Amino acid sequence: MKSGTGDLAVFGGRALFAGLDNRQCANTDLVEKYLTLVRKAYDSRWLTNGGVLVLELEARLAAYHGVPHCVAVANVACGLLMLLRTLGPTEKGEVIMPAFSYRGLPYFARWAGHMPRFCDVDAGSHTLDPDAVQRSIGKDTVAVLAVSNFNSTGDVESLCDVARKSGIPIVFDSVYAMANTHRGIRMGGFGAAEVFSLHATKLLNGFEGGYITTHDAELAQVLRWQRNFSLPAFKPGAGGDLHQVLGINAKLNELHAAMALLCLERLDQIIAGNRARFEAYQEQCRLLPGLTLVPYPDPDKEQSNYQMAVVSVESPWPLTRDQTVRLLCAEGAQISGYYSPALHLSEHCPRGMIVPSLPVSEMLAERHLQLPVGELVSLEHIHALGNLLGFVYEHGAAIRTRLMKEA
Amino acid sequence: MKSGTGDLAVFGGRALFAGLDNRQCANTDLVEKYLTLVRKAYDSRWLTNGGVLVLELEARLAAYHGVPHCVAVANVACGLLMLLRTLGPTEKGEVIMPAFSYRGLPYFARWAGHMPRFCDVDAGSHTLDPDAVQRSIGKDTVAVLAVSNFNSTGDVESLCDVARKSGIPIVFDSVYAMANTHRGIRMGGFGAAEVFSLHATKLLNGFEGGYITTHDAELAQVLRWQRNFSLPAFKPGAGGDLHQVLGINAKLNELHAAMALLCLERLDQIIAGNRARFEAYQEQCRLLPGLTLVPYPDPDKEQSNYQMAVVSVESPWPLTRDQTVRLLCAEGAQISGYYSPALHLSEHCPRGMIVPSLPVSEMLAERHLQLPVGELVSLEHIHALGNLLGFVYEHGAAIRTRLMKEA
Repeated sequence: MKSGTGDLAVFGGRALFAGLDNRQCANTDLVEKYLTLVRKAYDSRWLTNGGVLVLELEARLAAYHGVPHCVAVANVACGLLMLLRTLGPTEKGEVIMPAFSYRGLPYFARWAGHMPRFCDVDAGSHTLDPDAVQRSIGKDTVAVLAVSNFNSTGDVESLCDVARKSGIPIVFDSVYAMANTHRGIRMGGFGAAEVFSLHATKLLNGFEGGYITTHDAELAQVLRWQRNFSLPAFKPGAGGDLHQVLGINAKLNELHAAMALLCLERLDQIIAGNRARFEAYQEQCRLLPGLTLVPYPDPDKEQSNYQMAVVSVESPWPLTRDQTVRLLCAEGAQISGYYSPALHLSEHCPRGMIVPSLPVSEMLAERHLQLPVGELVSLEHIHALGNLLGFVYEHGAAIRTRLMKEA
Repeated sequence: MKSGTGDLAVFGGRALFAGLDNRQCANTDLVEKYLTLVRKAYDSRWLTNGGVLVLELEARLAAYHGVPHCVAVANVACGLLMLLRTLGPTEKGEVIMPAFSYRGLPYFARWAGHMPRFCDVDAGSHTLDPDAVQRSIGKDTVAVLAVSNFNSTGDVESLCDVARKSGIPIVFDSVYAMANTHRGIRMGGFGAAEVFSLHATKLLNGFEGGYITTHDAELAQVLRWQRNFSLPAFKPGAGGDLHQVLGINAKLNELHAAMALLCLERLDQIIAGNRARFEAYQEQCRLLPGLTLVPYPDPDKEQSNYQMAVVSVESPWPLTRDQTVRLLCAEGAQISGYYSPALHLSEHCPRGMIVPSLPVSEMLAERHLQLPVGELVSLEHIHALGNLLGFVYEHGAAIRTRLMKEA
């Protein structure tokens, strides 16, 4: 433990952690099973294009999410490029998206030939505000890209209503809502499609990858075609104008499907581990005035993945959010601002774009930080982190003064 | 062997092959080494973002190609999207590309925000005609996408000259020229950058993936940033306007780097196997009037990968190219037209685009077919295929008449 503020790593003391980060891909006891599956895929000599493991994964995920169609993709970025381009084939359209969200989103809209249109979010759920979406819909709108966050799936019905009334497709980025329910229904079947991740740091670890779920058989067929270069030989019989469906290579490899299949089998166990960590953080935060762990929905009403531990930093916490991040990073804990800065104020906002003030997004983006999670973070680590933060609170005034002086 | 034309599978006879296709990813004796590497990667718990195997692969490939920088990517499509967008940041530009080439290319230009501009090729090398490129360069040109084919790297110097004089960046798609030399220099260092594949059907098998080689340190730095979402925290110090560099997820996973590293070690052995197959096809074609195997450059002057076996179909061969493809596919051999149809006449040509006649591309696209290659094709298979084709030649008139009647 630190005996004085001079012991803090940010002031030159020894770091508390050797390196505490967010890698989810621990599962060390899975390695033998994984290697067996990889050997099978290897021996089949069919690894890249709709292999047996990918087909099995797609079938299992469709069942898991209660939808008829699941299309595996190389990663979420490719999945969103495909969806935004295919659902919004008119070039130079606008994709409505939350200003408080993942920084890759504006890029994905631009790859698809569109511009992002940033909308404000609801202060409680951190998800798109349906009224703001309604006001943002205009003649150029080609799609709404809603994001379901870890803490809330958002006002899914109102968002779908607004989109439907305007005849605009809505897509849910549900990367952080994997396994979560909305009004008791597991995410996966809302809007035109939903996108999930198989990245190594996400709930369902495929070492990389993603997938799209949908009720729309025609869309699923088009996406399967599109992820394999839209080769004419495999053009779907589906109606509609397929000429604007730009092909790409977004096939998921068997090597990734193998790991995702194994992790899907033990999803409950993974979530139980997440929940234990979340509750440990909760316990620590009760002792830390001004640090509030963003809650998950009532577990009696909704299922949640408990994957993230995000705190809001407010008075009477003695340091700013950014000072707290700096201090904890120095101690070897991989802490970062959460969805910060807001997208319309970031470098990810296309140059020259005029965006009105989006006050809720701006406020949220300044307030939150993300604590280390994943299977490499033990309850002891969380306890030690809590103790450290207690020390910071106790010596808050002195630390703040010194941080500002040395800034 | 077939005793009469009625024995041909296309007329209802039994297929000669159980399934003869182009999977390159045999290497069955590599599996143990591969699994050992995968276990190491697994245990390191660092699989997705610049892991040790990716770094090693990049270093080895840079050395192999004699360039200072190699940037591994998720696949060639992503690599070309990134290059065409980053080198041609003005939107709605034109990318000059051969009309006789891989059908994904027009899509990649369009994802990057541009339109393809199809150019004719040289009848001997099948690669971009520098004079045609010169004539196609206009105010909207943002890049030249040259393709080096298996049989010829093309007139690299003239193409680079034309591009340089117009101040237009030129990129080489060298997927089929991996390991090949141009005037004694291995491909990899020409133009602004070159792109290579690690797909399971390509010379260097990583089960999926690709890489970019370049002499340009600044470009390499930007591409490394771009493949990881252009996250602000990792923005390169390099000069220039980075605002138009659209981030994407194009990271290569350790699982792919592991296999590519192992195959890179035995590249000579893989090429020797290819050469033996190519020479077996050569021997067969000598006996088949009208079927000419497209040759590789003189082995005393240039190194070649001998990966492809492409034949041109001309008189006195009794069947058309497409009839021959149909007949061989029925026999279980995965045969296809080669780069057919020409891109400006295909569904991959953007709608409404007016393209003048490009006679060489049109002629080549009607003439060539691609024979099965890869480690699963034995010399016995090639011999059997040759015998079958001999039978077809012998009974050409009867087969042609019946094919036309039953079409």
